[in-house]
Amino acid sequence: MRKYMSKSKKKIESSRRGFIRNSVLGGLAALVGRSEAAENSVNALKVPSWSKELGAGVISNPYGKPSLFEKHVVRRFLPWMLPIRETSVSFSPIQEQHGIITPNGLFFERHHGGVPQIEPREHKLVIHGMVDKPLMLTVKELMRFPCVSRVHFIECAGNGILEQRSAQLNRLQFTHGMISSAEWTGVRLKVLLNEVGIHKDAKWLLAEGADAAGLARSFPMDKALDDAIVVFAQNGEMLRPEQGYPLRLVLPGWEGISNVKWLRRIEVGERPWEMREETATYTDLLPSGKARQFTFIQEAKSVITSPCPEHPVLYKGRQVIKGLAWSGEGKVVRVDVSFDGGKNWQQAKIVGPQFDKSLTRFEIDWHWNGKQALLQSRVVDETGYVQPSLKQLLSLRGTSYMYHNNSIQTWMVHPSGEVENVQVG
Amino acid sequence: MRKYMSKSKKKIESSRRGFIRNSVLGGLAALVGRSEAAENSVNALKVPSWSKELGAGVISNPYGKPSLFEKHVVRRFLPWMLPIRETSVSFSPIQEQHGIITPNGLFFERHHGGVPQIEPREHKLVIHGMVDKPLMLTVKELMRFPCVSRVHFIECAGNGILEQRSAQLNRLQFTHGMISSAEWTGVRLKVLLNEVGIHKDAKWLLAEGADAAGLARSFPMDKALDDAIVVFAQNGEMLRPEQGYPLRLVLPGWEGISNVKWLRRIEVGERPWEMREETATYTDLLPSGKARQFTFIQEAKSVITSPCPEHPVLYKGRQVIKGLAWSGEGKVVRVDVSFDGGKNWQQAKIVGPQFDKSLTRFEIDWHWNGKQALLQSRVVDETGYVQPSLKQLLSLRGTSYMYHNNSIQTWMVHPSGEVENVQVG
Repeated sequence: MRKYMSKSKKKIESSRRGFIRNSVLGGLAALVGRSEAAENSVNALKVPSWSKELGAGVISNPYGKPSLFEKHVVRRFLPWMLPIRETSVSFSPIQEQHGIITPNGLFFERHHGGVPQIEPREHKLVIHGMVDKPLMLTVKELMRFPCVSRVHFIECAGNGILEQRSAQLNRLQFTHGMISSAEWTGVRLKVLLNEVGIHKDAKWLLAEGADAAGLARSFPMDKALDDAIVVFAQNGEMLRPEQGYPLRLVLPGWEGISNVKWLRRIEVGERPWEMREETATYTDLLPSGKARQFTFIQEAKSVITSPCPEHPVLYKGRQVIKGLAWSGEGKVVRVDVSFDGGKNWQQAKIVGPQFDKSLTRFEIDWHWNGKQALLQSRVVDETGYVQPSLKQLLSLRGTSYMYHNNSIQTWMVHPSGEVENVQVG
Repeated sequence: MRKYMSKSKKKIESSRRGFIRNSVLGGLAALVGRSEAAENSVNALKVPSWSKELGAGVISNPYGKPSLFEKHVVRRFLPWMLPIRETSVSFSPIQEQHGIITPNGLFFERHHGGVPQIEPREHKLVIHGMVDKPLMLTVKELMRFPCVSRVHFIECAGNGILEQRSAQLNRLQFTHGMISSAEWTGVRLKVLLNEVGIHKDAKWLLAEGADAAGLARSFPMDKALDDAIVVFAQNGEMLRPEQGYPLRLVLPGWEGISNVKWLRRIEVGERPWEMREETATYTDLLPSGKARQFTFIQEAKSVITSPCPEHPVLYKGRQVIKGLAWSGEGKVVRVDVSFDGGKNWQQAKIVGPQFDKSLTRFEIDWHWNGKQALLQSRVVDETGYVQPSLKQLLSLRGTSYMYHNNSIQTWMVHPSGEVENVQVG
């Protein structure tokens, strides 16, 4: 367990080599490693083996896989977890993610009764309760409705939960890896509710999964009629088993658990059902002894993904700092970055598509002088909400509060180039 | 070979059953199969086996795979092609694609010397020729530059080539499956050219791959300085081997072959290099005996994906017709659909994100009366270009013209509900 929380000696060595190699170079040239290029130029003139013989044909590959050289890019669980069937969480390697789409094979997992293997032709979705005409749909029937395709993140309410408890796991994959993003295709729940006809007094809904946990969560009618989607496809193909195949609910921007997977039933009612996962768990205990319930929204959050503990700084001089930001309230409108632990802030550049309740990329230049530095990012969303520090969060919530840690992350860059997860302020 | 071109008896049977079941229902209710729901209601009350026992844990799945029940969703090659190493094309199952992202495992393939297995640490990209400072970059070095992430389609110039020759393959996967779409992450070529400093008279570039074919294509400086990207990642992860791992050129909207994979060299020069794949092949022979060369742009095209030969019409009454449209010139602004072989047209609804040079979804309602119908779609892009009929294309180009078949597709819906690929007009 300790080895995952402490410094990686290998990384220090490799970062030192990079540092020495590049430290004499300035400006953008430092980025491109001319010196390494020169060293390798003789080798480069040799025609590599793969250019000399016919490569693989298409037959080997009807459903493709990543390169053999990318085997390190996988979901992982925490070092003290055992490789047994009961292990129910895996973290996405967001330190290796590019762009805002998470490949389906790397989407983080969280389940409460394991991943069921559902035969899609036997699966049904029932919509009932305070409705005029209850409805039972097969997957194929659902797919015949008008559809929408939208890019949204899903984040576990517990993403960063151990950081809030001062675990200081020294890997971005573990501090922030319970978030992923996809293009979801499905039918707006509003369309289905229009079909069944909801009663005037109906105010809440229950979504229930077909997994062994029968996981069920209540959610309000406003969300159902706003942007809720009954989803069957993810990034162009049918949902993956661990993401709810064949059907899941997507409540954009809301805590992962409310995006009920293996969806088999939606009940319409007057008030919440007070299920296990919205009373005993997934509530937020305040210092007063009372608990907040139905804290659905994943508020604005951001993190620097390069550098990070897995990607040390390799040389002095110009760096391009890269990161991800998101908000369950809407669009990301601004990200600021600090290199001195929050004393001074500079506005980063938003890069690429900016969807509602979606991962958003940012970049900013940094000239590293080789001294210790404290890197932070802070997002502002379209509601004006500003990502808080952990100190601010804890002062409001007390130390019993568990979920929804959206606080500012600090990476300490050591003179060696190594990057460490630290808590400041 | 014939079996793939003729009608599938199984499909007719299943469509007839659906037809009988649903034909008495009208309106949206016909979509949702109340009758089937009622039939199955007793079974549905039984708790399925997968709800009764703990499902799979995360350990079985560090890099996930689709459900076992989705094994039919794979890339395929043509029925007369052999499962040998020399087979160099596979078609994406676009009849099963949802949304505008193609999963990396299903992205169509075309290669000219097989798929090389490149060791990324040994791979180099050289930029040289009419430049002030030639540059050699490793993959890691390239990744340190400022990046962009953009969603673009890539379509083979030969997509639909056999249709132009009247093959009338009776599967959407084969008529249109040489197109796929992804979020590409990389460095704008403009940024790299700025780094090397291009000479004033430089007007063309050459991109060369590290595959056994050493595939190389010339392209003009305007495109290089506009939206060309040297890409390392696709849909959030490093490029797949068959898509150019570890580096490829993306020339948004231009014929697939010019998006050179396994990119190892970019040369800057004054005029095209007249390589094999831009002279002997990938040129367009006109009736005059002259050939068009460097016809890069994949002009606006669309196709109805549901129904299609793989997805027959299952019942009379309201259908939601779904399809894909795209243009190598920019955004899709309008799609019209005809149900009578082009006599009358109705405007379809654009659904979901509308990116530049990207797949775009459309939908339109159709009330089928159970009689023979001829379904067509026709796209208009932001330049005002209108997708032509095959007759219009052939009248301009003659019958020797091979590539760039962007003509209107016709699906004949038979009274049985079966859908057949036909050529009309």
